[in-house]
Amino acid sequence: MKITANNPNRKSWLPVDKASDFPIQNIPFGVFLTKDDIITIGTRIGDFAIDLGALHQLGYFEDIPLTDDIFLQDTLNDFIADGRKTWRLVRNKIADIFDVINGKLRDNPIHKDKIIFRMEDVEMQLPVAVGDYTDFYASKEHATNVGSLFRDPENALLPNWLHIPIGYHGRSSSIIPSGTPVRRPVGQQKPSEGSTTPNFGASKLLDFELEMAFITTVANDLGDRISIEEADEYIFGLVLFNDWSARDIQAWEYVPLGPFLGKSFASTISPWIVTLDALAPFRVDNPKQVYEPLPYLKKQAKSKDSFDINLQMAIQPEGKQETVVCNSNFKYMYWTMAQQLAHHTVNGCPVNAGDMMGSGTISGPTKDSFGSMLELTWRGQNPIQLNDGSQRKFINDYDTVIMRGYAQNDEVRVGFGECSGKVLPAFDI
Amino acid sequence: MKITANNPNRKSWLPVDKASDFPIQNIPFGVFLTKDDIITIGTRIGDFAIDLGALHQLGYFEDIPLTDDIFLQDTLNDFIADGRKTWRLVRNKIADIFDVINGKLRDNPIHKDKIIFRMEDVEMQLPVAVGDYTDFYASKEHATNVGSLFRDPENALLPNWLHIPIGYHGRSSSIIPSGTPVRRPVGQQKPSEGSTTPNFGASKLLDFELEMAFITTVANDLGDRISIEEADEYIFGLVLFNDWSARDIQAWEYVPLGPFLGKSFASTISPWIVTLDALAPFRVDNPKQVYEPLPYLKKQAKSKDSFDINLQMAIQPEGKQETVVCNSNFKYMYWTMAQQLAHHTVNGCPVNAGDMMGSGTISGPTKDSFGSMLELTWRGQNPIQLNDGSQRKFINDYDTVIMRGYAQNDEVRVGFGECSGKVLPAFDI
Repeated sequence: MKITANNPNRKSWLPVDKASDFPIQNIPFGVFLTKDDIITIGTRIGDFAIDLGALHQLGYFEDIPLTDDIFLQDTLNDFIADGRKTWRLVRNKIADIFDVINGKLRDNPIHKDKIIFRMEDVEMQLPVAVGDYTDFYASKEHATNVGSLFRDPENALLPNWLHIPIGYHGRSSSIIPSGTPVRRPVGQQKPSEGSTTPNFGASKLLDFELEMAFITTVANDLGDRISIEEADEYIFGLVLFNDWSARDIQAWEYVPLGPFLGKSFASTISPWIVTLDALAPFRVDNPKQVYEPLPYLKKQAKSKDSFDINLQMAIQPEGKQETVVCNSNFKYMYWTMAQQLAHHTVNGCPVNAGDMMGSGTISGPTKDSFGSMLELTWRGQNPIQLNDGSQRKFINDYDTVIMRGYAQNDEVRVGFGECSGKVLPAFDI
Repeated sequence: MKITANNPNRKSWLPVDKASDFPIQNIPFGVFLTKDDIITIGTRIGDFAIDLGALHQLGYFEDIPLTDDIFLQDTLNDFIADGRKTWRLVRNKIADIFDVINGKLRDNPIHKDKIIFRMEDVEMQLPVAVGDYTDFYASKEHATNVGSLFRDPENALLPNWLHIPIGYHGRSSSIIPSGTPVRRPVGQQKPSEGSTTPNFGASKLLDFELEMAFITTVANDLGDRISIEEADEYIFGLVLFNDWSARDIQAWEYVPLGPFLGKSFASTISPWIVTLDALAPFRVDNPKQVYEPLPYLKKQAKSKDSFDINLQMAIQPEGKQETVVCNSNFKYMYWTMAQQLAHHTVNGCPVNAGDMMGSGTISGPTKDSFGSMLELTWRGQNPIQLNDGSQRKFINDYDTVIMRGYAQNDEVRVGFGECSGKVLPAFDI
């Protein structure tokens, strides 16, 4: 099916700023609460939120086989479970409805009033109920930096890293939408020199991790696997993802079973899921892989399996201007999403609609492209100077950490908006 | 509220074998499918499955505030979310209805026909939709054995182990009820000597892990924590748990982020959740802890925080008799469930209704009480002799692995039934 929604020449009758992340070529999916406390599934064009539940009730999707309540839900899970053909039909239809050449809705003020809201009048929610959340560790630069900092700079990459898209299970219950404040976590930290009793208290080394995450649809039953050739069919779309990390809690707990409470206090995602279809114009090759991947991780057909998505992270101290501290790009990821999904299911592990898979911190080759304060300040050795004159080794209370991301070519810009969170001080112990 | 359901003198008008795990003092909760393809929440007395949905519709719970459809569901999540007071009211009421002194249902053959089924006529389902699943690593003997086998027998326990109830996030989507076959997983394994290319194929070192798991109710919001004093209030009940493990896949993948595909292919639980209330008569002290726990892990009031539950694992080769290969006990766990829950939320991580927390492999002090083949055969060095004359280092195709567990005192036996799974050969690569 042709993805007509992506036509770069399309214009919407809704006003869209040239620098907007949400032209009519984007059409992301999200969930929002209206001023009347109605929760619905929607999309966004420019600075307008569009109620897909109302659009459906008023008959605009009548030629697409959809259940009546598919958009009248508080998560996208059921819509995502409907599969790629349905996503494409709906996205193409939305593009038609809002295309400048189509007057059906444009010229119906009563319908417009029921369907279109200003973004400032709605409250974005978590777009999916995440069943299982997996975080990968897919940037070679990041794995090398962390290996150098914590183990041995001469053998920074562990022997398995170049063969396996290394990943681990994360906590779903603490995934939150952009804008939700993040409470500084409390926990055990390494004993001080000469003591056997661990320190206990608020984390002193609170960090962000610049990541993206993809949301899947139902892919396989227990015992079955997904081939790498078909993996992309099961990816609905992507979000920006700040995988908050408490480095001191993490360092004490993570051997031998991996990160746990150092991560599970909060994981922030951007509220609009940008579909893999919308990102199709921005496909690029992933970095050349050192070893030939094993057959289950290697596509037969030549295809571009990564995406050129500019990513940045900024810190905004309370009441001050923000400072961009990192510029990275999704294309730096060594392992592709298709490889991650094929790997995840090679043992027969079922993947469901609404599962989320994080990329891991995406660090680039240059020092200003490292995706965490740990790497940017090299474990605090080189503090970052902010625009307001203050310095940061890690994140302070009341700092807001803001992630942004967009893809752009000569014709169109497709972006994600913001993924932000303000750090609140720890509760008293 | 008094837990009158636990009265050891109670007898049911339903026949119950003396050796049954399910006397009227148990009253576990589960989900089953009837012959008419109706799914419902139920309990079990002796060899009878009791349809709580029908019992409720016919008015037997009229004095308890319950929503009409609370038992007409395919998971226990909503009932569990109702909280401990409701669980107790319902359990006490069921005990009354089936008490030999109460004729209301006993003498109503039309109602009995709608409510009571033979166990062989129903099909047990997964009792909860597990949101997040965490696996702890709480047996000191197991952690010491694994540390000796894989690292250094002189420093088998890592420095954090005696201070932290170590745990990690597991995969929810591959949790299955007893009786579901388990497909031998395929995956990457360590390169052979002299090669840099990993081996790939069916796991050769398929193992069980003898565990138990507890199911929680809604406990805390993001940023809040649960005190150890109140932790038990949020535990609905326990199940038997076989955390299947592919040792060769695990060994190659697990550094530095922990177990992943070596575990996520299948995790089997017993279908009846035995409530913490039903287990109250079997409370015992947990092992003395080497270090004084940090304040958030230490109860002020003296209380018995572990449970004396006999656990065993048997292997049954196809068409042969089974051999019990391990006898362990829940009471060997070093860290208590209350400590695990307090630890899990100390950083503000939210715990929800239907979350599952595994104990980790429960190994006892003697060689026949080790909870995995890895430990029982000491990594294959000492194969186990089965009753049919064959030997096992790990688990073979078509072996059925059967876990059983029960608590018993002079007055009553409360058990879990079986948690079993048959291993099927790997699919061709």
